[in-house]
Amino acid sequence: MALPKSPLAPAGGFPPIPPVPGVRFASVEAGVRYAGRRDVMLAALAPGSVIAGVFTQSATRAAPVLDCEAKLGLPATGGAAFLVNAGNANAFTGKNGAAAVDRIVAAVAEAAGVAPTRVFTASTGVIGEPLPDDRVRARITDLVAALDDGGIADAAQAIMTTDTFPKGASRQIPLGGKTVTIAGIAKGSGMIAPDMATMLAYVFTDAAIGFEALQARLVAANAETFNCITVDGDTSTSDTLLVAATGESGVAVEDAPEFAEALRDVLRDLAWQVVRDGEGASKFVTIAVTGAADDGDARKVALAIANSPLVKTAIAGEDPNWGRIVMAVGKSGAAADRDRLAIRFGEIAVAEAGWVAPAYREEDGAAYMRGDEIEIGVDLGLAQGAATVWTCDLTHGYIDINADYRS
Amino acid sequence: MALPKSPLAPAGGFPPIPPVPGVRFASVEAGVRYAGRRDVMLAALAPGSVIAGVFTQSATRAAPVLDCEAKLGLPATGGAAFLVNAGNANAFTGKNGAAAVDRIVAAVAEAAGVAPTRVFTASTGVIGEPLPDDRVRARITDLVAALDDGGIADAAQAIMTTDTFPKGASRQIPLGGKTVTIAGIAKGSGMIAPDMATMLAYVFTDAAIGFEALQARLVAANAETFNCITVDGDTSTSDTLLVAATGESGVAVEDAPEFAEALRDVLRDLAWQVVRDGEGASKFVTIAVTGAADDGDARKVALAIANSPLVKTAIAGEDPNWGRIVMAVGKSGAAADRDRLAIRFGEIAVAEAGWVAPAYREEDGAAYMRGDEIEIGVDLGLAQGAATVWTCDLTHGYIDINADYRS
Repeated sequence: MALPKSPLAPAGGFPPIPPVPGVRFASVEAGVRYAGRRDVMLAALAPGSVIAGVFTQSATRAAPVLDCEAKLGLPATGGAAFLVNAGNANAFTGKNGAAAVDRIVAAVAEAAGVAPTRVFTASTGVIGEPLPDDRVRARITDLVAALDDGGIADAAQAIMTTDTFPKGASRQIPLGGKTVTIAGIAKGSGMIAPDMATMLAYVFTDAAIGFEALQARLVAANAETFNCITVDGDTSTSDTLLVAATGESGVAVEDAPEFAEALRDVLRDLAWQVVRDGEGASKFVTIAVTGAADDGDARKVALAIANSPLVKTAIAGEDPNWGRIVMAVGKSGAAADRDRLAIRFGEIAVAEAGWVAPAYREEDGAAYMRGDEIEIGVDLGLAQGAATVWTCDLTHGYIDINADYRS
Repeated sequence: MALPKSPLAPAGGFPPIPPVPGVRFASVEAGVRYAGRRDVMLAALAPGSVIAGVFTQSATRAAPVLDCEAKLGLPATGGAAFLVNAGNANAFTGKNGAAAVDRIVAAVAEAAGVAPTRVFTASTGVIGEPLPDDRVRARITDLVAALDDGGIADAAQAIMTTDTFPKGASRQIPLGGKTVTIAGIAKGSGMIAPDMATMLAYVFTDAAIGFEALQARLVAANAETFNCITVDGDTSTSDTLLVAATGESGVAVEDAPEFAEALRDVLRDLAWQVVRDGEGASKFVTIAVTGAADDGDARKVALAIANSPLVKTAIAGEDPNWGRIVMAVGKSGAAADRDRLAIRFGEIAVAEAGWVAPAYREEDGAAYMRGDEIEIGVDLGLAQGAATVWTCDLTHGYIDINADYRS
C-alpha cells in the first residue's frame, strides 16, 4: 500500500542529524511482511551505555514490550543493542511470541557480542499473527556487518508502518566546554493515544548519566510530549520509547537543566511529527486548556476535545463549530461551569461567559479554520489547572487507511 | 441536506402504533431552521398524567434540559404537555436561552390550558445559536387546534435532525383483564453516547402509576437500553427521555413486572433504531463482554471496543481484525489477563487463551464480517462481570455528514 505523503510533513524532508558518538545503525530488507523496503533496523551502542525506557500501559502488551520492561535498570555492562522489525507486532501471540523474542535476542547478542540482557527489541505491525522471526534472524549477521555512524535516516525508514514519512530530530548543546548531542527517530501514525502515544521512538545521546537520572529525565520529558498527543484515542500494544546514553562526550549531565530541556525538545519534535503523520491528517491541532480546577481536569477536557469525532470532523470540514467544543467540555467529566466557559480559535475570541463573544464573526472563524495549523483555546474560568495536547483532524483518509489496512 | 436512508433502517418503515388513551399529538412546519418539513411537535397529556425523565449528564446541559429537570416530581395536577423543536438546540445560549424556554412554556401553558410547571420542552440541532422562539410561539395555537390521537408518526418526523428515518415502537400487554399500551418515539443519529445516548425520546402509556415508581422503572430500563448504545462516544448537551403515564387504562402497574419488561422492550427497540440510524452506519454491532472482574469492568471493555475508531473502521471494511479488539481490551483500563482472553465473531471462536483459536480460519471471519448484523463476543476469563452495548461502524458517511453539518 503506497500512501500519499501527509500534507503536514516537514517541508524539508528528513532533517540532517549529526552522528552520536558511540551509536551505529544498520537496516535491511528482511521481508517480514513488506517486500521491497527496509523493515528491520539495528542500533549498536558503545560499552557502558545506559538505557532508559517508557512503555505502553496497555493490559495486552506485546511480548517485546514485556521483555524490554524486564531489562530496564539492569547493570550497564558491555555494549547494548536495539533491534526493531516492522510489519508484525508480535502481540497477542502467547508463549510463541515470547519464544520468538528470546530467539531474536540470542541471535543479536551473539552476533553483536553483547549480553542478552542488553538487547532490546520491538515489533510493530499486525497484531495476532506469529512473528516469522527466522526472517529477522537470517539477516542479523548482515546487519552487524553494516553498522555505521551515519545510518540513522535509513533506520527511521525501516521502522515505518502506515507512516508516510520518516521521523527524526536532534539537538546539540554546549556543556562543559564540549558539545552534547541528542538524536532520535520515531514511527507512529494510527493507534496513537496516551499512554504511550508514540508507537516507537529511539533517542540516542553521548551524554554521561546514570540510569536513575536518565529514567527520571525521560519520564518527565515524556509526560509533556508523547503523552500529550492523540490521533485516534486508540492505545497500542507495542508503544516503546527508549533512550540510550553512551557517555562518549565525557560530559556529565545529571545536574544540567539544559540537557533535560534539550531531551524534551527532541521528544516534542518527534511527537509532533507523529501527529503530522496521523492517519489521514490534514490539520495539525493544538488544544490548550486553562482555568481548570486542576491540571488533571484540564487534561480530561483537552483529551475529550482532541478525541471527539465530531470536533475532529468539523476541523476536517473547516467548520468553526464551537458548539461541538462545548459538547466535548460537557462530556469530559471535568468540573465546568457553562457560564464561565471561554473559547478561542487562535487569537479570535469565539465564546465567553457562556455565550458567543459579542465581537465574534462567523466569517473570521471560518477563515481561521482554513489554515492547516489550528489552535483551540478553552478557558474554564475556575482555577489555575492547565494542559496542552496535540492532535489532528478526522478525514476520509483515516477511513481509507483503516478500513483496509490490517494492523 | 437530504441524506440517503440508512441501509439498516427497519424494512417495514415506521411501525403501526396504536393510540395511547389520554395522549394526543400535533406537529407543524415552523421554519426554526429547516424549510419544507415539520419541525415542531406537541404532545398533550390527560389531566393527572405522571411524568418521569432522565437526561444528559453533560456539564454543559442545554436550557430546556435544566428546565425539565427542575419540574420532575412536582404534583401531577391538571394536564401536561411536551413541546419539541428541531433545528436549534438552545444550548450554550446563556440567559437568553433560559428566557426563550420560559416564553415557550408560557405560550404552551396558556394555549393548552395547563400549568407552566407541567410543560416540558426540548430543542435539538445547532448548539450556540439563539433559538428563534418567536417562530415556535407563532404556531402554538395551530398546534393545539390540530391535536389528534393519531399524530404520533408525524411527531416522530418533526423531531428529526440528521436522522434518516423516523423512529417509533410500541407494546401492548394484557393486565388485570384490560390492555395497557406503551408507545414511544425517538430521534438520534450522531452525538450519541452514554449517558444519555438517545438525544430525545418520548414514551407514553395509559398505565396508572405514581411518580416514584415510574421514575424507578424508567431509570432501570434506561440503564439496559439507551445507556448501552454509542455511535461516536460524543455526549449531547440535550439528551432527554421522558415517559408520561396517563392512567387512562385504569390498570395500576406498580407491582406488575410485565409493565417494567414492556417498558424496557419499547426503550430497547427505540435505542436500537437510533444505532441503526447512526451517522453513516452500514453495520449494526453488538458487543457482548463476559467473564470480567465485575459488571463495571465489562462495561468499560465493551465501550472501549464500541468507541474504538480502529475497531469501527475495520468493521466498515469487513475486516475480521481481531487484533484491534485485543488492543481495545488492553486500553480499556479494566482488569484483563492477555492469556485468558477469548474472542468470538458470532458463533465463530476467533481467539482463546491469549492466542488465535486452533480451528479459526480467516476466511470464516471474513465471511461473517460481510453480514450487516455483527456480534463480537469477548470473554475475559476472570469472573462473572458482564455487559452488552450496541454500536455501528465508522464509515465515509460519518465524515461526509459531520464535516459539513453544523450541529
